[in-house]
Amino acid sequence: RLKPMLHSLHPAETALLLESIPRAKRELVWRLVPDEDHGETLLHVNDEVRSELIDALDHDVLLAATEGMPIDDLADLIEDLPEQVTREVLRSMDVQNRDRLNAVLSYPSDSAGGLMNNDTVTVRPDVSLDVVSRYLQQRGTLPEDTESLFVVSRYGRYLGMLTLAKLVTLDPERDVSEVMNTDLEALPVDMSAAQVAKRFQDLDLISAPVVEDDGRLVGRITIDDVVDVIRDEAEHSIMSMAGLDEEEDVFAPIARSARRRAVWLGANLFTAFLAAQVVGLFEATLSQVVALAVLMPIVASMGGIGGSQTLTLMIRGLSLGQIGFANARTLLIKELAVAVINGLLWGAVVGVIAQIWFGNWVLGVIIAVALVINQIGAAIAGVAIPLAMKKMGIDPALAGSVVLTTFTDVIGFGAFLGLGTLFLLR
Amino acid sequence: RLKPMLHSLHPAETALLLESIPRAKRELVWRLVPDEDHGETLLHVNDEVRSELIDALDHDVLLAATEGMPIDDLADLIEDLPEQVTREVLRSMDVQNRDRLNAVLSYPSDSAGGLMNNDTVTVRPDVSLDVVSRYLQQRGTLPEDTESLFVVSRYGRYLGMLTLAKLVTLDPERDVSEVMNTDLEALPVDMSAAQVAKRFQDLDLISAPVVEDDGRLVGRITIDDVVDVIRDEAEHSIMSMAGLDEEEDVFAPIARSARRRAVWLGANLFTAFLAAQVVGLFEATLSQVVALAVLMPIVASMGGIGGSQTLTLMIRGLSLGQIGFANARTLLIKELAVAVINGLLWGAVVGVIAQIWFGNWVLGVIIAVALVINQIGAAIAGVAIPLAMKKMGIDPALAGSVVLTTFTDVIGFGAFLGLGTLFLLR
Ligand SMILES: [Mg+2]
Ligand SMILES: [Mg+2]
Ligand SMILES: [Mg+2]
Ligand SMILES: [Mg+2]
Ligand SMILES: [Mg+2]
Ligand SMILES: [Mg+2]
Ligand SMILES: [Mg+2]
Ligand SMILES: [Mg+2]
Ligand SMILES: [Mg+2]
Ligand SMILES: [Mg+2]
Ligand SMILES: [Mg+2]
Ligand SMILES: [Mg+2]
Ligand SMILES: [Mg+2]
Repeated sequence: RLKPMLHSLHPAETALLLESIPRAKRELVWRLVPDEDHGETLLHVNDEVRSELIDALDHDVLLAATEGMPIDDLADLIEDLPEQVTREVLRSMDVQNRDRLNAVLSYPSDSAGGLMNNDTVTVRPDVSLDVVSRYLQQRGTLPEDTESLFVVSRYGRYLGMLTLAKLVTLDPERDVSEVMNTDLEALPVDMSAAQVAKRFQDLDLISAPVVEDDGRLVGRITIDDVVDVIRDEAEHSIMSMAGLDEEEDVFAPIARSARRRAVWLGANLFTAFLAAQVVGLFEATLSQVVALAVLMPIVASMGGIGGSQTLTLMIRGLSLGQIGFANARTLLIKELAVAVINGLLWGAVVGVIAQIWFGNWVLGVIIAVALVINQIGAAIAGVAIPLAMKKMGIDPALAGSVVLTTFTDVIGFGAFLGLGTLFLLR
Repeated sequence: RLKPMLHSLHPAETALLLESIPRAKRELVWRLVPDEDHGETLLHVNDEVRSELIDALDHDVLLAATEGMPIDDLADLIEDLPEQVTREVLRSMDVQNRDRLNAVLSYPSDSAGGLMNNDTVTVRPDVSLDVVSRYLQQRGTLPEDTESLFVVSRYGRYLGMLTLAKLVTLDPERDVSEVMNTDLEALPVDMSAAQVAKRFQDLDLISAPVVEDDGRLVGRITIDDVVDVIRDEAEHSIMSMAGLDEEEDVFAPIARSARRRAVWLGANLFTAFLAAQVVGLFEATLSQVVALAVLMPIVASMGGIGGSQTLTLMIRGLSLGQIGFANARTLLIKELAVAVINGLLWGAVVGVIAQIWFGNWVLGVIIAVALVINQIGAAIAGVAIPLAMKKMGIDPALAGSVVLTTFTDVIGFGAFLGLGTLFLLR
């Protein structure tokens, strides 16, 4: 019943299906996946599901799965295969392909070199389009997603791109050098994947040449692999703001998930005790003015919400390159103004409600002032924390809830209970 | 000094620059942007900066900016132009282009129809590749990013795609119908942009045909525009979880930003009062056992952190299609188990610390039990809230901090203070 459906799915869809079912059923479903989809499906599932499947599969199934895979995809997969299978794969390849694979493997997987495929089709600048056409006819086939040929010098240096669109529309008598596109700078092999993604987006690229330091063309990157980078980056931000990892299995065994959650909750507990300790400083006050305890959650919550807006603006702005150390000050000033206005507005509202609720106008004024202080503190923390983390080389997205709310809680409780101690005790 | 730099930037980069500088300087920088980049730059800035620039620019500058823009981009821009300029633009176009523009404009901008361009190059199935080649030679040019021609019947029905790669490598004597690619189903014109993006990602597409209900080819979608959809979707999730809008100007005037933040803080205040009211139920208890007030923030914070992990898994899973109503139960059971284990673990730790801190073992047991209850409540809320929102047709990403923490605060305070009232009062 499932088999015909799996045959109609594309490997990326099969991968999503495998991720979406409980672990116990995955092997069963895997057995119905068509053999020719094995490699690509393994490539598309997240890291954890992949290593789970690889552990469960026989070595000859894995070896067969790698057959016919493009070099760039094979390079991604091979790093996760058992050593024995890797050796088998390398042995079964011809020398040229083995060299190509080793070339891609020699670069970090999150660099242009790791993203590229070396299936470039190259032509010389000093031949006519007609000669190129005859060469292609002779070749009889082109690698997947080829819409441009690369023009290289006799020494293999990248000179420009010749789109197939130009080849088929322009006068065959013209020379490649006359019509090739030289606008696009080649990507250095050590460019980061994030920068490659930005370049593709900014310039609307479909494929781009990758060159070594000396200008030698070593491969090309195609948009389909860049789309995966963009997708991964976006997921990474969303997940890491909650302390999660996008490569984890949603249906991981309970023990493993529990252990991971424990780490995150433990880190938070440590910071929560800081907040509790601040509250603890004011035990005497709280025992006399219980209303302070009742209103405490409001101060904390408003600070957390205000701060998380500033923080999110910063995290996104830093990752887009919209915000840097140069204009963070402008943003801080704006956020401070927004914080003061909102602190006054909602401080007044909460103050009036507190006055009515507890019949104490001093308490009303105190919570209003605490809200203003807390919004200001939240704005400063929201701007400063991600900048500081970036400077320390830590991903600012990790600053999410845990770090920020520690600051807003401490500031909020300290201001509110401190003012209460000063003006409400008698 | 800035001018040569702006000439070397691509419009997408110029747009980012404009977004990154304070409002006061934008007009100044805009004046240095090369005329030919005006249209594309306007297209790339976010909605708010775009309308700001459009308001500031003369009508003839806007009219000039639209010249030579591809129809799909023009359709996106024209919706934001002043009516008078729109009329001018339409008047200045020839009939064919005006019809094309109106065709794209007639579809919602977040559908396949709104994303497409009608610059398809079509061929018939019953001609030879040689005939196609001669036709292209005669044409002399192809639209940007053309790597495939579309094969249509005499009545304009979509039949298949002919890649230029095949055209240049296969025997010219062969017929189009023999070599065309018929695997790819055309996208219906009313398919949502999100589904279009998923299709492109799953099938590694570079361009895809768009058809009307009757199978008539009406346009094509290219990957560069799909990349923008993917990017926008990702930003939308990140931003809306914090109650922000990705199309807003980071450096918007303070009054406008303050007004927006006020709405979000106001919504949160309403929910924060619910939590405060729960605490208020236990005033008598709190006045006798101040330690409860001191430890309250720990219970609330641990619930919020645990719940936000479950919530983030759900929001991402729902948007990927990894989680639906069918397997949400499996996830809920797993999350409940993880919650119980972590509740017990950290409950025990906090319980021991509370016992040492306040010298009261009953208090220690109570906070431990409250943490377990709160983690369980957080897991249920994290799974149920996004599902409920989805069912109501509300974007689950909006459930972020505000809605979830209301639940975890109420459950946490209720359990902790309720247990305290039962067992600590004498
Ligand atoms: Mg991944
Ligand atoms: Mg690699
Ligand atoms: Mg790859
Ligand atoms: Mg673009
Ligand atoms: Mg474009
Ligand atoms: Mg590839
Ligand atoms: Mg330029
Ligand atoms: Mg946008
Ligand atoms: Mg549109
Ligand atoms: Mg568009
Ligand atoms: Mg892909
Ligand atoms: Mg591929
Ligand atoms: Mg386009």
